[in-house]
Amino acid sequence: MIYPPTTPEPQGHHLTTQILNYQLTHGMHLKHIPLNPRLPRNSPVGSSYPISTSIFPTPFPKTLFYYAKQTLQPIYNELYALLAQDESWLYEAVIRPLLPVDAFARTLWEIHERLTNEGEQEGGGYGSNISMGLFRSDYMLHGENAGLQLKQVEFNTIACAGGCHANKAVDMHRYLTKTGVYDSLSGASDDEVKRDSPIKLSSLPVNDNIDALAESLAVAHDMYGRPAATRRAGVLFIVQPDNFNVADELPIEYALWDRDVPVPTYRVEWGVDVLERTCLGGDRELLFYPHLQGDGSDGGKRQPVEISVVYLRAGLEAHEYDSTGIECRVRLEQSRAIKCPSSLGHILTFKKVQQALMGPGVLERFLHSEEKVSAVRDTFMSMYPMDGVSTEGRVGRRLATNPDTAGRYILKPSLEGGGHNIYGEDIPGFLLGLTSESEWGRYVLMERIRSPIVGNVLISREGVEESDVISELGVFGLCIWKKGEILRNEAVGWSLKTKFADVDEMSVVKGFGCFDTPLLV
Amino acid sequence: MIYPPTTPEPQGHHLTTQILNYQLTHGMHLKHIPLNPRLPRNSPVGSSYPISTSIFPTPFPKTLFYYAKQTLQPIYNELYALLAQDESWLYEAVIRPLLPVDAFARTLWEIHERLTNEGEQEGGGYGSNISMGLFRSDYMLHGENAGLQLKQVEFNTIACAGGCHANKAVDMHRYLTKTGVYDSLSGASDDEVKRDSPIKLSSLPVNDNIDALAESLAVAHDMYGRPAATRRAGVLFIVQPDNFNVADELPIEYALWDRDVPVPTYRVEWGVDVLERTCLGGDRELLFYPHLQGDGSDGGKRQPVEISVVYLRAGLEAHEYDSTGIECRVRLEQSRAIKCPSSLGHILTFKKVQQALMGPGVLERFLHSEEKVSAVRDTFMSMYPMDGVSTEGRVGRRLATNPDTAGRYILKPSLEGGGHNIYGEDIPGFLLGLTSESEWGRYVLMERIRSPIVGNVLISREGVEESDVISELGVFGLCIWKKGEILRNEAVGWSLKTKFADVDEMSVVKGFGCFDTPLLV
Repeated sequence: MIYPPTTPEPQGHHLTTQILNYQLTHGMHLKHIPLNPRLPRNSPVGSSYPISTSIFPTPFPKTLFYYAKQTLQPIYNELYALLAQDESWLYEAVIRPLLPVDAFARTLWEIHERLTNEGEQEGGGYGSNISMGLFRSDYMLHGENAGLQLKQVEFNTIACAGGCHANKAVDMHRYLTKTGVYDSLSGASDDEVKRDSPIKLSSLPVNDNIDALAESLAVAHDMYGRPAATRRAGVLFIVQPDNFNVADELPIEYALWDRDVPVPTYRVEWGVDVLERTCLGGDRELLFYPHLQGDGSDGGKRQPVEISVVYLRAGLEAHEYDSTGIECRVRLEQSRAIKCPSSLGHILTFKKVQQALMGPGVLERFLHSEEKVSAVRDTFMSMYPMDGVSTEGRVGRRLATNPDTAGRYILKPSLEGGGHNIYGEDIPGFLLGLTSESEWGRYVLMERIRSPIVGNVLISREGVEESDVISELGVFGLCIWKKGEILRNEAVGWSLKTKFADVDEMSVVKGFGCFDTPLLV
Repeated sequence: MIYPPTTPEPQGHHLTTQILNYQLTHGMHLKHIPLNPRLPRNSPVGSSYPISTSIFPTPFPKTLFYYAKQTLQPIYNELYALLAQDESWLYEAVIRPLLPVDAFARTLWEIHERLTNEGEQEGGGYGSNISMGLFRSDYMLHGENAGLQLKQVEFNTIACAGGCHANKAVDMHRYLTKTGVYDSLSGASDDEVKRDSPIKLSSLPVNDNIDALAESLAVAHDMYGRPAATRRAGVLFIVQPDNFNVADELPIEYALWDRDVPVPTYRVEWGVDVLERTCLGGDRELLFYPHLQGDGSDGGKRQPVEISVVYLRAGLEAHEYDSTGIECRVRLEQSRAIKCPSSLGHILTFKKVQQALMGPGVLERFLHSEEKVSAVRDTFMSMYPMDGVSTEGRVGRRLATNPDTAGRYILKPSLEGGGHNIYGEDIPGFLLGLTSESEWGRYVLMERIRSPIVGNVLISREGVEESDVISELGVFGLCIWKKGEILRNEAVGWSLKTKFADVDEMSVVKGFGCFDTPLLV
């Protein structure tokens, strides 16, 4: 199979125009925020530019695609729901090693401890016994040909992004396929094309992330139960200020409002906006005063909305936890609203968790099934802590500081979001540049995944470029649980992201990589 | 009723943000084309900015809204279908007066004559006996209170725009209403708000222009009948190059592809692109070779698409008719494809037609019903020709050149599209500036419509501004006919556009005015 199809001019230009047109008319855009230094000043109010996408779908093994969704995701959902309930394991395996070296882990744990201690008194402590996760487990292909395997890049438990963009990118590639634009680009004659063209609608899986993520929140909203008689209930999206990627959040809100029985949904910015616009009711209800329904200053006549589900698309980065940010998180946790995620669920996003799960007997402790244990373990690449104490830590340090071995590894901090990893040959020098070796413990060392390389053409704000690429499959999972009981566990969606093979980072909104569709083979 | 509701900061800011977010995520954007001098250079590939919209729906009388759609539009559709079939009336009333003074009218008539003369020979002449119109009849309110009437601004027969934007603007105002953001802006307390807020979902009519315009084209596509056995049939959109307003065309194409039985739809640019990508088959089929399916140079192996319906979103402006443009139009007319519109249908868009319809007995000649005649006549403002020969023309010249009377009139050239009218006090000086009085005959003089003024807040790329505004209701009509028989006649959609009361022009894409939703009262 010749892939990608050749695109002689002017066909290439015509295809690019169709893609740009589709992006514009479907809101596959990023907001121009004046803070973004890559964009020109003085742009008109509300201007925007397209998110990067691939021109062609990228081949991906069909069996592994469905295995990740149908088999792996429910096991991972279960595993993380169980981890979130085992405070002592979490403390020993994740928190204790990080406390001395990772201020963010310390902050989150202090929030948890404060809530636990408050719990002794009336009106304090955790307000809900139901927890919700909208997870995203990311995989890359590893190996060659018949030996291809899925290896986990990371498991995200907070503010998992890309669902809406992925949905629309798939819609776009499916639309382009339907119109026949890919049929003829191989240069074959018409009859041959019909036989040979690898891009068929039936090979491009449907993606309904937007509806499925909305449905997930609606399920939790229903579980919350009825609000006090005089109140409406609604879902609250906690968002970052000046977010240029609103197009990955809003479609979920619109879908919630658009249901036969609308689920009222509101946005509030992380921090002071949360503190000013919410308060706790007598029964720990999270009461929210919408921005466009007065400020409550007129004698309390306004009826607040009782929040059923708090969906965090903010509060994932260390810098968000100044004293206001901490109070914001505590307020939310004190409330009866279901949090997606809870503080303990959030902590599970640390890379340290992945590494800790590799320890002998750990998976067996949580998953009482050999099959589940080996399914999860098969997705692991080698990972090492970087402490100077444990046996594994000493191995990690040796591999990371030796230029002969470091090339095969990635050094990952516990921080959420891309852009902070150190790759291969850069690792030894980076470690030496840190002020003290004790800081090394903030990182984990992970063996690099060796993905097969295919060709594609990517379109970004910089232009159109053909190149070798590699892809990353993300699977969205919904899990809702309370102590000892999993109430809901399913895969709800997926995303495929693709980047140039010679670029290490995979963050589409930062300009590395693009949204893509798997061509199932 | 206090209108619009007051919007104290920061509520106003919050509402504006919600609107900008909705516009971005729903493709209510205009493309940044580097040619547009109002936009900064060096913007990223594919960048765009929002189309102007009102912040609030604008009050509009319910009875007149439905009267325009349900009663007036079918009569107007019928009238224009009959006019298009009466070549002798068209020549006498419209073309003969324009021939000496209006080069565009001359060009279009020459195309018609060439096709008529060719008709004597085999292979030439008009190729289809079915004609299609997707019209838009524009009205403004005239008068006061109980005496309010609809007065026609113009009747458009080619490339009628605004359908998609109007649809999405209405969706947006309905979404905002559903979320409750308008409820509290009056400053009343919650109970009062519920009673007083004039903006209720039930007062905002649903708009489904996009589906309805797609359905209209699908109806004509079906009427065309089956293509030759080996071919696909499809609809061809003829579009302007470098169009920055693709968001008003593409949603119709997507809707056609998205039907249960997709109607294949293609885009081709007016002019050389049409000539290179199409040819006539042996039975006058318009055969189209899609851009992404080869250039036909490989021994003719590619199967072309047989075009069922030619939908013109180009070819409406005089400058498009160089020799290539003329050949393009002739090619299309020679084909069996149903044209929307045909050349004669196109000529009916000239303002001269409106004025000619005012002549004594003209409406009676076409509409054999007193009720229909008076319904149409009631929408007329006084109009005068500007020739120096007829009685009416002399009256027109006297009114237009006298500064005391000119203020009550608008001088309109026959050109399609906004931006060419001369208003009120500017008329006498403008006429004197023309090189000869014979040129005056290109214009018609129309009495200005005196619309009631209401308050609203408009958001455009320049910012947010509260002001007195006036609105214009456009009604989209579908009419398909062949000689002596109307095959389809219905109203298919509508748009509401609103502008500052002190601005004369109404062209949203040029930055005057915005898309709006009627608040039916």
